[in-house]
Amino acid sequence: MKLLVVTPITTPGLHVADEFSAMVDPDTEIVHTTLEVGPASIESEFDEMLAVPQTVAKIMEGEKNGADAAFIDCMGDPGLKAAREVVRIPVVGPCEASMHLAAMLGQRFSVVTVLDSVVPMFWNHAKVYGVAEKLASVRSVDIPVLELHQDPGAMVQALVRESRAAVNDDGADVIIFGCTGMCGVAREVQSGVGEVPVVDPVEAGLRLAELLVKTGLSHSKKTYPYPRPKSIRGYDFVPEIGEVEA
Amino acid sequence: MKLLVVTPITTPGLHVADEFSAMVDPDTEIVHTTLEVGPASIESEFDEMLAVPQTVAKIMEGEKNGADAAFIDCMGDPGLKAAREVVRIPVVGPCEASMHLAAMLGQRFSVVTVLDSVVPMFWNHAKVYGVAEKLASVRSVDIPVLELHQDPGAMVQALVRESRAAVNDDGADVIIFGCTGMCGVAREVQSGVGEVPVVDPVEAGLRLAELLVKTGLSHSKKTYPYPRPKSIRGYDFVPEIGEVEA
Amino acid sequence: MKLLVVTPITTPGLHVADEFSAMVDPDTEIVHTTLEVGPASIESEFDEMLAVPQTVAKIMEGEKNGADAAFIDCMGDPGLKAAREVVRIPVVGPCEASMHLAAMLGQRFSVVTVLDSVVPMFWNHAKVYGVAEKLASVRSVDIPVLELHQDPGAMVQALVRESRAAVNDDGADVIIFGCTGMCGVAREVQSGVGEVPVVDPVEAGLRLAELLVKTGLSHSKKTYPYPRPKSIRGYDFVPEIGEVEA
Amino acid sequence: MKLLVVTPITTPGLHVADEFSAMVDPDTEIVHTTLEVGPASIESEFDEMLAVPQTVAKIMEGEKNGADAAFIDCMGDPGLKAAREVVRIPVVGPCEASMHLAAMLGQRFSVVTVLDSVVPMFWNHAKVYGVAEKLASVRSVDIPVLELHQDPGAMVQALVRESRAAVNDDGADVIIFGCTGMCGVAREVQSGVGEVPVVDPVEAGLRLAELLVKTGLSHSKKTYPYPRPKSIRGYDFVPEIGEVEA
Amino acid sequence: MKLLVVTPITTPGLHVADEFSAMVDPDTEIVHTTLEVGPASIESEFDEMLAVPQTVAKIMEGEKNGADAAFIDCMGDPGLKAAREVVRIPVVGPCEASMHLAAMLGQRFSVVTVLDSVVPMFWNHAKVYGVAEKLASVRSVDIPVLELHQDPGAMVQALVRESRAAVNDDGADVIIFGCTGMCGVAREVQSGVGEVPVVDPVEAGLRLAELLVKTGLSHSKKTYPYPRPKSIRGYDFVPEIGEVEA
Amino acid sequence: MKLLVVTPITTPGLHVADEFSAMVDPDTEIVHTTLEVGPASIESEFDEMLAVPQTVAKIMEGEKNGADAAFIDCMGDPGLKAAREVVRIPVVGPCEASMHLAAMLGQRFSVVTVLDSVVPMFWNHAKVYGVAEKLASVRSVDIPVLELHQDPGAMVQALVRESRAAVNDDGADVIIFGCTGMCGVAREVQSGVGEVPVVDPVEAGLRLAELLVKTGLSHSKKTYPYPRPKSIRGYDFVPEIGEVEA
Repeated sequence: MKLLVVTPITTPGLHVADEFSAMVDPDTEIVHTTLEVGPASIESEFDEMLAVPQTVAKIMEGEKNGADAAFIDCMGDPGLKAAREVVRIPVVGPCEASMHLAAMLGQRFSVVTVLDSVVPMFWNHAKVYGVAEKLASVRSVDIPVLELHQDPGAMVQALVRESRAAVNDDGADVIIFGCTGMCGVAREVQSGVGEVPVVDPVEAGLRLAELLVKTGLSHSKKTYPYPRPKSIRGYDFVPEIGEVEA
Repeated sequence: MKLLVVTPITTPGLHVADEFSAMVDPDTEIVHTTLEVGPASIESEFDEMLAVPQTVAKIMEGEKNGADAAFIDCMGDPGLKAAREVVRIPVVGPCEASMHLAAMLGQRFSVVTVLDSVVPMFWNHAKVYGVAEKLASVRSVDIPVLELHQDPGAMVQALVRESRAAVNDDGADVIIFGCTGMCGVAREVQSGVGEVPVVDPVEAGLRLAELLVKTGLSHSKKTYPYPRPKSIRGYDFVPEIGEVEA
Repeated sequence: MKLLVVTPITTPGLHVADEFSAMVDPDTEIVHTTLEVGPASIESEFDEMLAVPQTVAKIMEGEKNGADAAFIDCMGDPGLKAAREVVRIPVVGPCEASMHLAAMLGQRFSVVTVLDSVVPMFWNHAKVYGVAEKLASVRSVDIPVLELHQDPGAMVQALVRESRAAVNDDGADVIIFGCTGMCGVAREVQSGVGEVPVVDPVEAGLRLAELLVKTGLSHSKKTYPYPRPKSIRGYDFVPEIGEVEA
Repeated sequence: MKLLVVTPITTPGLHVADEFSAMVDPDTEIVHTTLEVGPASIESEFDEMLAVPQTVAKIMEGEKNGADAAFIDCMGDPGLKAAREVVRIPVVGPCEASMHLAAMLGQRFSVVTVLDSVVPMFWNHAKVYGVAEKLASVRSVDIPVLELHQDPGAMVQALVRESRAAVNDDGADVIIFGCTGMCGVAREVQSGVGEVPVVDPVEAGLRLAELLVKTGLSHSKKTYPYPRPKSIRGYDFVPEIGEVEA
Repeated sequence: MKLLVVTPITTPGLHVADEFSAMVDPDTEIVHTTLEVGPASIESEFDEMLAVPQTVAKIMEGEKNGADAAFIDCMGDPGLKAAREVVRIPVVGPCEASMHLAAMLGQRFSVVTVLDSVVPMFWNHAKVYGVAEKLASVRSVDIPVLELHQDPGAMVQALVRESRAAVNDDGADVIIFGCTGMCGVAREVQSGVGEVPVVDPVEAGLRLAELLVKTGLSHSKKTYPYPRPKSIRGYDFVPEIGEVEA
Repeated sequence: MKLLVVTPITTPGLHVADEFSAMVDPDTEIVHTTLEVGPASIESEFDEMLAVPQTVAKIMEGEKNGADAAFIDCMGDPGLKAAREVVRIPVVGPCEASMHLAAMLGQRFSVVTVLDSVVPMFWNHAKVYGVAEKLASVRSVDIPVLELHQDPGAMVQALVRESRAAVNDDGADVIIFGCTGMCGVAREVQSGVGEVPVVDPVEAGLRLAELLVKTGLSHSKKTYPYPRPKSIRGYDFVPEIGEVEA
């Protein structure tokens, strides 16, 4: 199985392929890429709009190059719906994947994310994904994405603090990390929180992508039909939509 | 009052400034633009992602050039949230404006749009805008955007047919046109439907923009905070976010 | 444009026509009236029921006298639905108008009203108007309607205090004043609250009435059909429903 | 036990006290009244507003005269909330009572009422009463209230027809009559519909009133606080609100 | 009227028939039973599953022995749906009965129960019963079922404490006891809480059972059809389903 | 990985271990069991209650015997919540798993099940699982569980017929089989339906169980705490709850 991972920012090194490989089956091949066209990080709707076009283009190319599924490595799920329109392989976003997974693990879940600026986005995603009534709260650690790794101990400490508040004050039964940059510390945070599962959205999403490939399932082409071919200006990195695909 | 209208496609002539001017106060100045970078029309999430970056850029420029409000001339409301983050002037989308207006005019409303491919988008918008329980149905006339004006009589006939079905079969009390390309025929369609109001989303949105300017209201900066400044690659047409604005 | 404003109480002087005129277009004529039959103020469902019949009667008379739209100057929207049944001109209530407007300005809104006794009414209105999931909280300043103007400074101070609590504790992104008697201090309160819009429901409603007249839209006669003519006893101030109107 | 029944119209004879007595315990005394001030029948929000003031006045008087509970004999539940504010005895409306009862008897219920004009009211009531997701549909037999008894056979036939459609086409598991004028034919209609319960809202409401008196429960004075005393003009039949009651 | 009460645990003496008789009409005969097969008390889904089979069997036997209705004396409503499938007499659960009753008494209600372990169950019940939006909160006194009666004063004190918190902090307008073992102290607790009704779910349920018998109503056989007869192994105390009943 | 599968009926041979093994990773060991105590099949709440106790007991034993996860092979998810209380290993139900999976694949999903008698159960499950607004409809093929395999061709034909109706008439974008006895024909049905994914709930559930074991996640012990130890009568096949586990 070949699994394309698009980290939809132009900053290299936030994630490396080995981190993803450690989270999937031994025989799942990870193909990892970042963007040449886009924002340094994503912390707003404005940042996200800049990430979407090439993220989708990379997924189109990935399908042509034989990828069995694609994973978008950002909790905003940028380009998730657009990408599903232009490919047949499963496309997985960590927000959708982790929200549905968390919904199955307990009564209600909370998201602990980077900054207050993305809080409304999580509520809107929960509404569109159909799980809003399972979302107890969205909290932030108030650390920008690219500063998360400057002091991993401080990040873990902040995640524990906000997760405990989500459990004790907001009624959360499950915690989801609200940024893929928080990847890799779920067990550590869980030991500090106690009785509730802590979902790493990267792991949740990668495993869901594997699950979909193994079951042969992908998104509904009734919901995500191929776009009609038409002229596009100014996006030389976006492949054309052909007549045949529809 | 100066009102910027961005028709977020690269096809010229779908709308001209005079059409908008006819829908606003005599002393409201319309500044109209289309895109140089983007899709020929918008009929999918894929098309929409290509329209968003320059739509937002045009609105940023519009604010710098003295616009009092901006209107995005497409029922997908492309870039609405991102644009609100980067400006202080009101930004209005016709989908949000017409859904809330229709919600006030009757018990439930239906949207009659161009193609089945955008039906899920309207349901998702209604959820995020908070009016999903007022949405009775979304129907389509099965005519692509750029073919709407090839045979205006056929368009009106199809709009009447689907509007009647929405009223009689789906329980709609109000009709909203689901594409800004249908602009200008609301009264004609209404006379064919009968007892229910037919909302032209362009008129609704332009008038809402005027209303906001007159009341001095704009979007909440708590919901739409300024993005943090950061490096962007490959979008030379997008202005930089400065430190001062936040 | 002629705009009828009914202040649905018998106390004169809470509002004068000039206050309304200052909130509308220069060429919009305000016709203002209070009630001869009704309560001194409205702070309960009991008070409201006493205000409704003559409010509706005044709007029926207003339509006959050439009004282009009617505005009910009370946040309970007393008589809104009944009035829409008996006239064709747009009838606007400040609660409905400001809730839908606020819903467009930010993620969630709070209402800050006069007394705890009307808190359930706002929740019920939000449900019927279809925006309950956008309503973060309803708070009160604990000042009766007719005492609001005794100490305007105290009123503003209380509004700022409760608005801040709504923003910080309840998650509000937008504030709506919960009584039309609070009219005129939105900017002052906003400067004390900070980053969130403060909606004056009188201004919102008057401007919406203008918008509807300008677009030619009014309520759906499918939702609000003319009542069947029938005998009425004891309300000599209520016009008869004629056969012709239906 | 003394149970006040207010038939909130001025037309005598639609219901007589014996009909109510046949539906309650032998030792429950029925005190029945109609209105001197109000509409001939209720088929609109307009009609309803005319019924509310004296309905509430009659309930206030009833409490003073020793009634243990009050029942409002109209499916619009006119004055239900206002009456609860001004008395401590339980006040029951047939719409609220039958909707909650039906919700307990099966998965979803439908209302079969007189005219299309009151259909939106039932949806709004279901929202405010908190049972909207249990409401499958609202249908009408297209017979005005005061014509229901002109041809009882035709009424039953129409009720059977619409009830069957509700069950087979709309997914109803329980039927509620949507007008108290349909009182007394539930068993007949049920035998024509088959496997689903048919709720007579008059019987449901009267029995609920008895239940409340027997359990000593009444409405929450936190939700329905006594109105503050104030001057009222033009309603000589409405008792004054005294200071002591609050 | 003969009313079967099943206390679905094997511990004798938690309730005795006289307690139930004191809550119903003088001529209502109470037939009370506990279980021989089941748990000592119910404080989890695990306990509940052990209570259900014989509870349902007892209700089947009760119907054969002439009971007019059955009441399940546990707030988990164990076996409510299964029992309704296999009998025609009304089957009442105290959770469903008290939630719908409370929904009619005020804007929102809270449940005060024994232990945190059953809190999610109440939320799930409210969702299935269709009244989730009326449920303000679920709180616990942290006393196991079988210890409630060891110190009745402490139980009342704890109920008052949590009920006050529900009213003041969670917005409750009505309180429901969350365990039938709390039966009998509603008035005492109410006097300590103040302005909100306190619903004893045993009394609510018994009175609802009487109401249903008197109206001739029972659950919908469309929602609760007779099970198809089939072989059952290992439950010698469960009667066989016969062909004739369907 | 060792995966326990409990087919919660006493009828042998509906499923054999090899069918499950074909749906999981090669190195996942399937341990399959049916019940000695329970119903021949599950087509009602009554049947389900008889299946739950030993299903839960088998899962408790499975955990003691080293199972890494458990799968309940019935779309009613019998015992899912009770089992989660008494074990720490993940317990997966096919209904919950397939509903959340389907929710991620398209806008709305429909369930096509065996008999009308289980239709309400699916709606209730969707409410409790938090995905009710994604459920378009529940349809049945009108074939009892134990007759599904008598004529596999007829079963497939009926599944195609009802799936097409769900897509065309009810607005479904994804189909879920509503009985685990329909296992194995998803691809065949999909080819007859066209553009929408068809989810086999057995495959979905087994793959979700694997996913959970691989990620180290399991249900929240805050939602599903260990039951308090107490005496149980009449269930010699149910292990005792020990003090230590909590």
